[in-house]
Amino acid sequence: MTATGRTDLKLQTFLPYMLNNLAERVSSGLSGIYVDEYQLSIPEWRVIANLAEHCTLNARQIVERTTMEKSKVSRAVSNLCERALITQKRAEGDSRAKDLTLTEEGLALYRSIVPRVLDWERELLAEMSPGEYRDLMHLLQKLGARLQLLEFPEA
Amino acid sequence: MTATGRTDLKLQTFLPYMLNNLAERVSSGLSGIYVDEYQLSIPEWRVIANLAEHCTLNARQIVERTTMEKSKVSRAVSNLCERALITQKRAEGDSRAKDLTLTEEGLALYRSIVPRVLDWERELLAEMSPGEYRDLMHLLQKLGARLQLLEFPEA
Repeated sequence: MTATGRTDLKLQTFLPYMLNNLAERVSSGLSGIYVDEYQLSIPEWRVIANLAEHCTLNARQIVERTTMEKSKVSRAVSNLCERALITQKRAEGDSRAKDLTLTEEGLALYRSIVPRVLDWERELLAEMSPGEYRDLMHLLQKLGARLQLLEFPEA
Repeated sequence: MTATGRTDLKLQTFLPYMLNNLAERVSSGLSGIYVDEYQLSIPEWRVIANLAEHCTLNARQIVERTTMEKSKVSRAVSNLCERALITQKRAEGDSRAKDLTLTEEGLALYRSIVPRVLDWERELLAEMSPGEYRDLMHLLQKLGARLQLLEFPEA
C-alpha cells in the first residue's frame, strides 16, 4: 500500500493532471511578461533562457532540456535567427548539428527579462512560508529523481 | 523578502521550469500505457478522461479544463468520433457548440485504462511517505489557488 489507495480516477487529485494543469497555467501566466512586451513566444523564450544558461546548444539538446516538440524548437530557432537574437554555426565534427548561441542583442534581451520573471515567481510564491517553499522544492526534486528511475530503469 | 531572494535565473530551481519539466515527463511516461496498447494520443486520452468525469462537455469546455490548444482538442475529438469512442450532438440553444459524450465502447476503454494509470501513479509515488504525499498535494493545491488569484485578480 502506497500513498494513494484509490481505485477510481479523480482528475483533480490525480498527480499527472495536477502537474500538467499547474504547469500550463504557470507558463501562460509567465508568458504575459514576454509575449506582449518582447514579442517572444513561449518556445522562443525557453530557447533563449536555455542558451543563456548553457552558452552553446544544438536544437536536439534544446529539445531534451525543454521537453518541447522538435517542430516547436525548430520554428523558435528560425524566428530568433531572423531577429538576430541568436546565431547558428555548423558544429565541428558533425555535419548536421548546428551550434546555437545568443547574440549580444539576445543576451541583452534576456537580461532585461530575467528580473521580471523572477518577480513573477516571487508573486506566485508570496503566500508560501520559507519552510513550505523548501518542502515544495524538495518534493518536486524527489519526484524528478523518481521519474528518472522510471525513465531509465537500467541506469 | 519572500521565499526566493535570487537575482539570477537558474532554470533547475526556477519553479515554472521545474513544473513544466516534471509535467512533460510525467505525461510522456504515463502515455506509455495508452499510446502503444490503445493507440490513443495524449490529447485523446485527456478528452476521454474528462468526458468520463463530466459526462457531457463541449470542445470549449475541454480546452478550459485541459489547458490544451484548441487545435489539439479538435483533432482529438474528430479522431475519437471516427473510432466511435465518443459521439457529438448539437447542443440545445447553441447552434455552434456540440455536446460530446463517451459511447459505451469509449467508456469500456476508459475503464480498462484507469487501473493501469492509477498503478503508474502509485509507482511514481512509491518512494514518498504518506506525509510527504499529503504535503505535496497540499502545496500544489495552494499553488493552484494562488494562480487563480493572479489569473483573476478582480474575482
